[in-house]
Order: sequence, then C-alpha cells, then structure tokens
Amino acid sequence: MSWIGIDLGGTKVFGVVYQGEKVKKDAKRKTPLSGGPSAVVETIVAVVNDLGGAGGVKGVGVGAPGAVDHEAGVVLQAPNLAGWEESDTPLGSMLGKALGGVPVRVDNDANVGTLAEHRTGAGKGAADVLGVWVGTGVGGGLILDGRLRRGDTGYAGEIGHTIVHPGGRACGCGGLGHLEAYAGRAALEREARERHAQGTPTKLVELAGEGRMTSSVWSSALAASDVVALELLDGAVAALGTAIANAVTLLDLHVVVIGGGLADRLGPTFVGRIEQAARGQLFATASRLRVLPARLGDQAGALGAALMAAESA
Amino acid sequence: MSWIGIDLGGTKVFGVVYQGEKVKKDAKRKTPLSGGPSAVVETIVAVVNDLGGAGGVKGVGVGAPGAVDHEAGVVLQAPNLAGWEESDTPLGSMLGKALGGVPVRVDNDANVGTLAEHRTGAGKGAADVLGVWVGTGVGGGLILDGRLRRGDTGYAGEIGHTIVHPGGRACGCGGLGHLEAYAGRAALEREARERHAQGTPTKLVELAGEGRMTSSVWSSALAASDVVALELLDGAVAALGTAIANAVTLLDLHVVVIGGGLADRLGPTFVGRIEQAARGQLFATASRLRVLPARLGDQAGALGAALMAAESA
Repeated sequence: MSWIGIDLGGTKVFGVVYQGEKVKKDAKRKTPLSGGPSAVVETIVAVVNDLGGAGGVKGVGVGAPGAVDHEAGVVLQAPNLAGWEESDTPLGSMLGKALGGVPVRVDNDANVGTLAEHRTGAGKGAADVLGVWVGTGVGGGLILDGRLRRGDTGYAGEIGHTIVHPGGRACGCGGLGHLEAYAGRAALEREARERHAQGTPTKLVELAGEGRMTSSVWSSALAASDVVALELLDGAVAALGTAIANAVTLLDLHVVVIGGGLADRLGPTFVGRIEQAARGQLFATASRLRVLPARLGDQAGALGAALMAAESA
Repeated sequence: MSWIGIDLGGTKVFGVVYQGEKVKKDAKRKTPLSGGPSAVVETIVAVVNDLGGAGGVKGVGVGAPGAVDHEAGVVLQAPNLAGWEESDTPLGSMLGKALGGVPVRVDNDANVGTLAEHRTGAGKGAADVLGVWVGTGVGGGLILDGRLRRGDTGYAGEIGHTIVHPGGRACGCGGLGHLEAYAGRAALEREARERHAQGTPTKLVELAGEGRMTSSVWSSALAASDVVALELLDGAVAALGTAIANAVTLLDLHVVVIGGGLADRLGPTFVGRIEQAARGQLFATASRLRVLPARLGDQAGALGAALMAAESA
C-alpha cells in the first residue's frame, strides 16, 4: 500500500510517495503566485503525476500553511498563499475530484510536521510531543497521548501566537507580544531593518540588501558576531523559552521538538539554548523536559501529510 | 453504591457522601496544624465516621492541596499542610489502611474541582474544560476529550505558574512573573501591604489589620472604590486574561470555568471581566470561548474527589 504526502508551502509544493514505512520517491514544483486555489490544485496534481500518479495510491495527505478544518478538508485561512484570503477553500474535495476520486486528507503544516517527528523522528516513543516550527513565522503542533490535538476550531498548537510580552511587539496577525513577533524570521527581519534605519548598522541588512533576510543571512551575521543579530536572537531564545515553559507547565509534557528553516539552519546550539531558557522558567523542576532538534528536515511536512492520510484511512 | 469524597484543605477537611448521583450528607473538621500526615489521616477518618463510616462505601477519593502522583496515591508536595514538607506522603495507602482496606484514590484539589464542574457543574457537556481556581493561590485543572489530564509528573493544569510577565513579580514558588503572583489572594495581600507601607494608604490594610486579607476584605474595599484594590484587581484580571488566552490558543478549547474563594466572592462581574480580557488577547477570533463562574461553590472539591474515586473504580 502506498500513500502520497504533499507539503504545500508558500514557495514550493513538495511531495513524497510513502510505502512500506519508507519514502520511496519525491518531487517538487513552485507554488503558483497567481490563480488562487485552482492553480494550486493544478500544481499539486502535476506533482502527483511527477510521483507516478494517483493510480494504486490509497490516499493523499496535504499539509497546508494555515488554519484547517481537518474533518471537512477545508482551509480556513492561509495568509501565505496568494488568492486564498477571500473565503474558505474546500481543498480536500477539489483535489479529490481532480485526482479522480482518491481520498484526500488535509491538515495544518505544523500539525503534520509534528506528527512525522513523533512517528519517525526526534519525538519517537514519547506519549506527548510539542512541535515548534521556527521559520518565517512560528508554527506549532501538539501530540497528546499519541494523537494530534486539533482542537475545537482546528487552531490547536498555535504556540507562535501565545503571548510572551503582554502589550509587546506587534505580530503579523495583529496581536501584541506574541512569540512569533520575537522569534519568527519575518518579524526578526522587520526589527533588524528598523534598528538599521534608526542608525544601528548591522551586517544583516548589508548581507540581505533589498532581498529577503534568509536563515543563512542570520547564520552568517551571527558567525561575524553582529551585535543586532546576537541581541535579536537572544530575544528569540528567551521568548521561545517562556512560551515552551508555559506549555510544559500547563500540560506537563516532557518532549519538545524544534524544527523549521531558521532552527534547522542555526542548529543544535540554538536548540540547546532554547532548552536552557525553558528549563530556567519551568515550574516543576522535577520535569524531565528535553528540547530536541527535529530530525526529518525538509521532509517532515510531506512525510507527515502521508502519515496523516494513512492513519485517517 | 456510595462513595465518599474528601476535600483536604489547609484550614478544613470537608467530606461528602455521594450516592445515586447526589450528595447525601456532608461533614467537616479543622485541619490539624501539627502532627503531620498521621494527624491529618486521623482527622479524615473522623470525618468519614461523621459521615457514617466506610462500611458499605465502595471507595474514598481525596483532593489534596499540592502535587500528587495519582497512580501511586502519593502527595509529592503540599506547602499548605504543616509537616508535609519533608518527604513524599503515601496518603492513599495510609488512609486505606486506617479505613480497613477500602480503596482510596488521591488527586490534586484543583483537578478534582475541575472534574466536578465538568461532570455536574458549569462545564457540563463540554469536551474540554480548563478550570482556574482563584483563591490563596491560583490552581488549575484540565479536562481534554472528557478526561482529566494529569501529565507526566502529576503537575498538569498548573496555569497559576505559567508566566504572564517575564522577569516580573516574585511568586511564592520562587519563579518570576507567574499568574499566581498577580492573581492569588496571598500575593495580592503582599503587594497591597507593601504599597501601604510605602505610603499609599488603602482600606485593604485598614479592614484587615494584622489579620488575613480575606476575600470579603477585598470585596468591601472594592465596593468602597479603594484605589489600590481597584488597581491590583485590574492587574489580576489582565493577568488571568493573558494566561487563559495562552491556554486557549495552545489547546483551542472553548470552556473555561473560574472558581475558588476570591472568584466566588467577587462573583460573575469579575468572571465576566476575565472573559473580556481573555477574548481581547486571543489569536483565533473565531473561538467560541466562554469563561463561566463555577457552580458548585465549596462543594466542588469533595464532590469531585468522590467522582474521581467512582470513575477510577
């Protein structure tokens, strides 16, 4: 039996074939920047065809960047996909029809990434896992007693939008003092450019120029001991520590997995500092808390989407 | 079939007989302030005898003020019980022996209170409930998918020790910026006395004198529009709103029940203000969040302890 998993991202659509507990094949295409949901569905179909088509496949899973009603297969909000803002998108039924009736399951990308890390990655064997995805934004997924918690409206796990500094920095979502405003790459870039504009020179802006301040720009600026980069990442580590400590105190879980582009790039040292920051703010000192780097890298989303489809069958 | 539930508090031991889905009888005695665990066990036995004895009773449940290893029936930490500091107390087996072998189950008091509110009180019918107990400290309990979450070490639900202001007010537990340091009665009293000592007169100290600043002292000072009382309770409402918003964002649940001595005394207006503060800080604006006053008052702990024993049987 084989399954296809699709990681639908803001820049690329990445797919894998999952069979016999292994990834057998992968393929990727650029996410269309116009044409809305139907153009994205066409691109997903093209990736499925690159992988050998849906014939003989038991099901397809999709991890989407936004809030998802998993039961209905509907994407409620996906601010990082062009033309998806206007209304809810019934991605599951659209894609199922385009693929000739194969069952399609949809979930949030951070949820399926966390599922993959729990089933086959850094969180394997733990009853409970909190996954924290530090990339452009900060996503999260929550496994409790071995099962993904989706919650009442599909938003469960959104640790990036928990408050670490009441009344603090504005988050992209409009809230104040959210974790994402201190630890997401886009928010860190805004802050760095603002400091630069206000007269504090930083290698971050010199290296990025007008372009995006990528994770490798951050990595290079840190290597050069750039003061703004050091300060902003200290703030990110502290904020991640606070939000993780709060989740651990509330849920009394002991495995946290950190993934996402920025975290993957900054590596185990960054993750180790987050563990230290979280431990220093924990209530239950007896907690066996471990904060671990994700193990599946870029594949977590697509693999998790395939696993989610397989487990929902 | 009948069950006995015991609410073991720092000042009193309150017990009920639960039979046919009703509380049939109750009894209370003062918690001994010396003699440690064995004196407390004697007092619980006396309350059980006041209730008619353990003969014919299927089981006894105890809600204890502290961290509890529910599986083992061991109280790990109970700072509000004199003489319980030195080591873990096997309350379940001690009491079971003293009662002639009747099965005894032990859990944290906020957990069993939340269980009672979920089964028969304000949270009835909801899949998930967060219970927040605003009294001397701030306790919490968490029902997910209808079951009490105890967590890895028995500390789950401790929302009072989540951080609302990193580096902020010192909490009784030694942590900084915890919710309890802004919303627990003992912490509020410390803060009020400090302001008074520093030259800001307040009715709170005039009314309490050298005695404890009780919930009714707070209520009277508020009724008199005392500025310190108003300011401190505004801070408590804001802090409760932040911590509740964070829990709701992480777990995507929609029923929060607020109980405890201070909240019961300040009533629905206080709870309504907390709901407003939480809503204003939520990520998912679509959330159907309701913050409701607890319905079972003083009985929640003992009733919840009986229900916990019945459900564990």
